[in-house]
Amino acid sequence: MAAPTPTSPLAPTRFPDLPPIDGVRFAAGAAGVRYQGRTDVMLALFDRPAQVAGVFTRSKCPSAPVDWCRAALAAGRARALVVNSGNANAFTGSAGVTTTAAVAKETAQAIGAAPGEVFQASTGVIGEPMDPGPIVRALPALLAAARPDGLMDAARAIMTTDTFPKVAAARVKLGDVEVTINGIAKGAGMIAPDMATMLSFVFTDAPIAAPALQALLRKSVDRSFNAITVDSDTSTSDTLLIFATGAAAARGAPEIDDDADPRLAGFRRALDKVLLDLAQQVARDGEGARKFIEVRVAGAATRRAAKRIAMAIANSPLVKTAVGGEDANWGRVVMAVGKAGEKAERDKLDIFFGDLRVAHAGKRDPDYSEAEASAYMKKKKIVIGVNVGVGTATAKVWTCDLTKDYVAINGDYRS
Amino acid sequence: MAAPTPTSPLAPTRFPDLPPIDGVRFAAGAAGVRYQGRTDVMLALFDRPAQVAGVFTRSKCPSAPVDWCRAALAAGRARALVVNSGNANAFTGSAGVTTTAAVAKETAQAIGAAPGEVFQASTGVIGEPMDPGPIVRALPALLAAARPDGLMDAARAIMTTDTFPKVAAARVKLGDVEVTINGIAKGAGMIAPDMATMLSFVFTDAPIAAPALQALLRKSVDRSFNAITVDSDTSTSDTLLIFATGAAAARGAPEIDDDADPRLAGFRRALDKVLLDLAQQVARDGEGARKFIEVRVAGAATRRAAKRIAMAIANSPLVKTAVGGEDANWGRVVMAVGKAGEKAERDKLDIFFGDLRVAHAGKRDPDYSEAEASAYMKKKKIVIGVNVGVGTATAKVWTCDLTKDYVAINGDYRS
Repeated sequence: MAAPTPTSPLAPTRFPDLPPIDGVRFAAGAAGVRYQGRTDVMLALFDRPAQVAGVFTRSKCPSAPVDWCRAALAAGRARALVVNSGNANAFTGSAGVTTTAAVAKETAQAIGAAPGEVFQASTGVIGEPMDPGPIVRALPALLAAARPDGLMDAARAIMTTDTFPKVAAARVKLGDVEVTINGIAKGAGMIAPDMATMLSFVFTDAPIAAPALQALLRKSVDRSFNAITVDSDTSTSDTLLIFATGAAAARGAPEIDDDADPRLAGFRRALDKVLLDLAQQVARDGEGARKFIEVRVAGAATRRAAKRIAMAIANSPLVKTAVGGEDANWGRVVMAVGKAGEKAERDKLDIFFGDLRVAHAGKRDPDYSEAEASAYMKKKKIVIGVNVGVGTATAKVWTCDLTKDYVAINGDYRS
Repeated sequence: MAAPTPTSPLAPTRFPDLPPIDGVRFAAGAAGVRYQGRTDVMLALFDRPAQVAGVFTRSKCPSAPVDWCRAALAAGRARALVVNSGNANAFTGSAGVTTTAAVAKETAQAIGAAPGEVFQASTGVIGEPMDPGPIVRALPALLAAARPDGLMDAARAIMTTDTFPKVAAARVKLGDVEVTINGIAKGAGMIAPDMATMLSFVFTDAPIAAPALQALLRKSVDRSFNAITVDSDTSTSDTLLIFATGAAAARGAPEIDDDADPRLAGFRRALDKVLLDLAQQVARDGEGARKFIEVRVAGAATRRAAKRIAMAIANSPLVKTAVGGEDANWGRVVMAVGKAGEKAERDKLDIFFGDLRVAHAGKRDPDYSEAEASAYMKKKKIVIGVNVGVGTATAKVWTCDLTKDYVAINGDYRS
């Protein structure tokens, strides 16, 4: 692992309150999977089976825990979640499968559950055989320590090159009853579109059945975790799971089993907000990041085209290095629009940095001021706006700048 | 422009001889388009109309000279080629079109040709209006200075962030007559797949008709310029043109008008070699490059799948920073194979660094030696081999490592 990096200048200035959620307890421990002197394993323990939904990496080489979770999701019930950092248990062949099965079996035995009710995720080095021993030996202490207010410790235990723990929370009415949504995430590199992020776990006491949860999650992820990128590299391990304990039913919250239920409107907005908050925090903690970048595309032929153009801009090393260098190099935005392969009218293209229109109708804006643009580029958050001039579809995505620190962090991550 | 960069450590140790080609003369000059104290414009002058073929960027925002050349290619005859560095004349609206037309008109008048017989290319900053004045004023001196052995000077005049001029040459029999193929190229950043490189111009005295030349070029480019990447960013200006003066006909070379003519076999191989040589030189001069990387993919379902997987590896910032850090981080190769979205058998995957098999059948090779792998990573040329285990198709692509110098060069290119 690289030497400790100072906290990202883009980190939130304070952490939100994380109100305890009935029915789930958390613990973190130092199992010594790879790191020493820090926590590296977390447990979430559900007092009764929770409803669970998830989305995973689209990698053709997924990790053993991703395969495990995909299979376990069929039943849609969770009693525990075990997550470690330091080793991704990816590309570890049949030994990786054995490790995952062993952790599930030991956890299930200890709590009187079925192995398929134990969800798992692992993050860290790829291709290193992972011994289940350290995690199994840490289990008794984790089970004893689990408590309702342990989520922040859990968020810290799953960090790798992250410089801050990522947490988000929302309270919202379901029927007449207030329910809570708490989420955590980790991820700083190997972050790319069309997937969930490295790891994110969301917990709620709302009584929502697994199929409805799954539908909510799929819709929400398109505009949150699937709208961020750090380096265009899709991980083998990306996992986003949401667990609903249903404990709010005892307080009179309605039980929901259809994602089209109109009573879900507020919950849906709150979930979108929590996921977007977590996803943006991942981009804000992108390896080496000093600028947070929002890309807004309008005037595209379709939503899909808008997003592809936005991602072409957000993934362009030349755009990202220009932002890092505080250079208002909008010509590189033109390049990125051009390479996206989607319909665009060169001679109708408008480009904005923040509120400054730098290009209009296919050429430099007549009112363009290099001094104004340069002053804008000194901000910590840079908004790049593009109108491609062919339709009405829009998209927003988020990323960070590309700096020498990204190269430094990734030139010696393993050593 | 960034401060002068030292010559890439991957530059060829010597330049090849460039034997003069009958029927074409070259000149370079200092027009002052943007740079001072160096040449920035080149002229190629054909004594009689040359046959011409070309391929261009697939950008949806192509430069004005790219639009100009595409239109001019319909006639397939060239009397002159004018190329400048310092300004790409891209995203310059109708002013850009006017500039291109003005350069063509002035050149054509001076040599008694039609404007459509004047080919053009521009490379440099995007979005900056380009005044034709400096080029037009430089024309008389260029016309007077043009000489058969001026190609190396021309190669230097079109450099931007390049650290060395890129030239390649071949002599080959066409029928019983020896013909020559000379080529030049420029490009170091904004280099990505599915296109020609930034700029490359190839000249031959072989009497080959434009449609046959075009067919030869299209086939050859897929395994040369379309098989390299520096930073995944496709330029607005990529242009590859080949000019055939036909002068070898006077020495008895057969006139060829069909690309399936069996007499072309040797010429085709020689052309492939020249284009591959130039394309690899572009990757060797990738901005900030210290390592030249060859990616070989085998065992893929189709040629297209093999190339997509190879490009996913070659474009991965995490693979490229690992090579830059001399870290044998083959887990990132697994990640890149996984994200390519093509069929791959995780549990049959083999990965090689040079001759060292580091992963076998979906996990770390039992004979893997970190010491051997680390020693290999110190080489200047790194060969990453992957067998994806599902079929028989193969592909090879070339790139360079990602270093802090890439970030430095691109953080202040405009300033």
